[in-house]
Amino acid sequence: MYTVLDTTMRDGAQHNKINFSVEDKLGIAEALEKLDVDFIEYGAPAFDIESADFEARCKQPSEKLVAFGMTARVSTPPEKDPGILKLIAAKGDYVALVGKADRRHVEKVLRTNADEYLQNIRDSVATITKNGKRVIFDAEHFFDGYAFDPTYAMAAVGAAAKGGAEILTLCDTNGGSLPQSVRDAVSACKKAFDATIGIHAHNDSGLATANTLAALESGAEHVQGTLLGLGERTGNAALSTILPLMKRLGLKDLPGLNLLTPICRTVAEISNIAIPDSAPYIGSAAFTHKAGLHADGVLKESDTFEFISPESVGNVRRLVLSKQAGRHLVKSKLEGVISEATEPETLSAIYSALKEREAAGYTYEAAEASFYILAARLSGRKVDFFKTVDYTVIDSSDALSHAKAEISVGGVTASARAEGNGPVHALDLAMRECMLKFFPAIDSVSLVDYKVRVIDPKSATGAKVRVSITTTDGKRTWKTIGVSGNVVHASFIALEDSYRFALNDDFNGLFA
Amino acid sequence: MYTVLDTTMRDGAQHNKINFSVEDKLGIAEALEKLDVDFIEYGAPAFDIESADFEARCKQPSEKLVAFGMTARVSTPPEKDPGILKLIAAKGDYVALVGKADRRHVEKVLRTNADEYLQNIRDSVATITKNGKRVIFDAEHFFDGYAFDPTYAMAAVGAAAKGGAEILTLCDTNGGSLPQSVRDAVSACKKAFDATIGIHAHNDSGLATANTLAALESGAEHVQGTLLGLGERTGNAALSTILPLMKRLGLKDLPGLNLLTPICRTVAEISNIAIPDSAPYIGSAAFTHKAGLHADGVLKESDTFEFISPESVGNVRRLVLSKQAGRHLVKSKLEGVISEATEPETLSAIYSALKEREAAGYTYEAAEASFYILAARLSGRKVDFFKTVDYTVIDSSDALSHAKAEISVGGVTASARAEGNGPVHALDLAMRECMLKFFPAIDSVSLVDYKVRVIDPKSATGAKVRVSITTTDGKRTWKTIGVSGNVVHASFIALEDSYRFALNDDFNGLFA
Repeated sequence: MYTVLDTTMRDGAQHNKINFSVEDKLGIAEALEKLDVDFIEYGAPAFDIESADFEARCKQPSEKLVAFGMTARVSTPPEKDPGILKLIAAKGDYVALVGKADRRHVEKVLRTNADEYLQNIRDSVATITKNGKRVIFDAEHFFDGYAFDPTYAMAAVGAAAKGGAEILTLCDTNGGSLPQSVRDAVSACKKAFDATIGIHAHNDSGLATANTLAALESGAEHVQGTLLGLGERTGNAALSTILPLMKRLGLKDLPGLNLLTPICRTVAEISNIAIPDSAPYIGSAAFTHKAGLHADGVLKESDTFEFISPESVGNVRRLVLSKQAGRHLVKSKLEGVISEATEPETLSAIYSALKEREAAGYTYEAAEASFYILAARLSGRKVDFFKTVDYTVIDSSDALSHAKAEISVGGVTASARAEGNGPVHALDLAMRECMLKFFPAIDSVSLVDYKVRVIDPKSATGAKVRVSITTTDGKRTWKTIGVSGNVVHASFIALEDSYRFALNDDFNGLFA
Repeated sequence: MYTVLDTTMRDGAQHNKINFSVEDKLGIAEALEKLDVDFIEYGAPAFDIESADFEARCKQPSEKLVAFGMTARVSTPPEKDPGILKLIAAKGDYVALVGKADRRHVEKVLRTNADEYLQNIRDSVATITKNGKRVIFDAEHFFDGYAFDPTYAMAAVGAAAKGGAEILTLCDTNGGSLPQSVRDAVSACKKAFDATIGIHAHNDSGLATANTLAALESGAEHVQGTLLGLGERTGNAALSTILPLMKRLGLKDLPGLNLLTPICRTVAEISNIAIPDSAPYIGSAAFTHKAGLHADGVLKESDTFEFISPESVGNVRRLVLSKQAGRHLVKSKLEGVISEATEPETLSAIYSALKEREAAGYTYEAAEASFYILAARLSGRKVDFFKTVDYTVIDSSDALSHAKAEISVGGVTASARAEGNGPVHALDLAMRECMLKFFPAIDSVSLVDYKVRVIDPKSATGAKVRVSITTTDGKRTWKTIGVSGNVVHASFIALEDSYRFALNDDFNGLFA
């Protein structure tokens, strides 16, 4: 039986920018359970003040909960070591106990006699198992230790086995091991010990997934990692990458895997980090096709361009609009939204307008709302629900911006002034105030993201600027774009499109 | 001999959010050359309008330049196929020609007779080699094709070999292959063909590095990837991860590798993307130690906690609880430029100011001129050769900007007005006109590049904006930076630093 342990809350918390509260940990535990992760390592009770609170409030069954701690201090009998006592008192059935398997670390960092330390490992594990807990032994620096002194590394793991550890996890703590050395060392341990062999990899060489796979191929049956790959330095092995692999290899059933992407987003939200667009399986671009030929192929035969379906990991396929994308892709985007736009003549007009705009610096792949406005306009639908008569923005050396906007709707004009901490902020506030006089629904609309990109910077301050804006009304989130030699004017164009989208009932079903 | 091809400008440009201008491409080529990358695939002349311009302006030797294209259309004789003709006319000595190696793709996507297509591959390659070009054949979907119909996949590669291709690159186009299947297929090709075998991996399974390594272990001697791992979906194999691995395995010498991190930052800046903190070797957290025990261990014996030194890849060690990290780097930058700045007390002041500014959103890696101005100021040197008394910029709905600036030098004030096609353009013109009244040498100074990035975009128009500006005086080219909630003010800060640098004789020897 293969088991998976998530250590987001413990080893993941070593990540540069992470600090979990008890509330955070409760939320992460809940998310992990939905994914059928076998073990949840929730903290180190001897060090974390929040572990006791977590234990009291968490709803996970005790056979899933794992408390983490270190072998006893060499000078202290394990049954009196405060860390060991905390582990014995912890809530879960399992304890993960870390000990060093590299003689250099024992001698140079711990500054302890190497033989005494082996006895210490055995006694620490035995003290915990005698008190009714099951032990996962984490052999820190195992692979480096095995390369330096295989006899000692094996003896350290063997000491844990003699103490009664059920799972012997071999750790590539520094992340420098290569798959072949992982294979060799795991095979040796598999041969030498009856206990289950586990793998704990780090990504410093970009090989955390590969080393985990190499261990599984060599007899390991227990995997440790963090859902999103969070962890010190380059992070731990990412379970979001390894779980789909284990399912594909038939090692685990994982019925919850089709929720992988939303669950990962929840954990990312709790951790206050962004999932990279390019993250395997769960990134927003993981199933995004841009090249014309590829996008064409995906529409014809999706399994020739995808080895796994986006649905099976809770993600979606995206075909992006770009000059590489074909006419049929544009058509498929318009079907069911602006039905008359798919008529050959209108479609041709839209397609050429798209090409023309892209040559001028527009890019609709990240601004689909602007694409739909363009298509609606070329299909003869109403898109101009208001007209901006005039705007002015003044920036001065106090770093503040003052804007004035004048907007007319059906011949009635409204104007407003606003101050902002930047020209776009001020302009948006002034436009918004005018809008509200005509369209009270605009009250729920707000900007959530703003990006600027200088295109073709060779002409420096004379270059074109591309601004993209993300807007939400609480139900839908949409993106618009503006291009101009003037950053304020480019922002104005994107803002106008954003309000046009908000006011257009034709688009009610989009981006919900 | 092992060779490496970077395809950032071609396959990397398939990335979701990438759009390279000719200027961008010239900058990337320059960066790649410093890293001793053997081949630079710069584009597809049959599709990219910018390839001709790039060819005319790039300074790389022709043996490094690779143009990319597809096999001839089946209905067209290769010697008349416009795409093939473009490749023959391209500047580089090498051509990368892509053809399909999966029978299903030939039949279902191309809808072509499988045998005719083999002849087409052979004829396309032969037409190019006969015309004096050397051919790298990219066998698209090779591994999936090999799993489905090994005979056909080998025949496709064999057809290219018969046509005279020197390098046969096996592509895991969908990114779903596992290392073992890569090993099997590469070994088979190594046995069957005399030509060099190459590997082109994608990261959809988180195994791009592992599959590249598996291929190298099985006889491949040519690696394709993109420096930062940019590419469609989850991206291509990242050369920033693979180059250190190849050096470690003794496959390549790579004397430029100790510049890896700054070079990657330059390419990231050009691509307008952020390098993830956790990126192996080059991420800001790649050598960051947070855990008390680890940080302690690193101080005692760095090689027990790091399998590679940060310096060897141009990165620095960071200890989260200590501010010592990176100090020596700052010191080494100042030696010989501002000698008194390397005194312990001054150095500490500069170092803390740097940390403070970085926390506020500044980043000096791509704006060294601003770093030197900061250091000079804290060392007590004169940096304020002028004072901006006031500025105002007005933007209005005609998309034009009007600026007024007032500058004083030694109690004498000058003011000027200017019109520009954007606020920064107008402001720069107005400041410049004032400056010229005091410093005629400013006449040779001009802005050559301008970049904007929104930092912490969650707060939308209230977010901070980072502006970086590149300036030249014909002899030197320098970069400055400004951060503010207001894009115009951030630009102003960078502009002031740019003029400060131009006027400071202490910096005469820098960036020449």
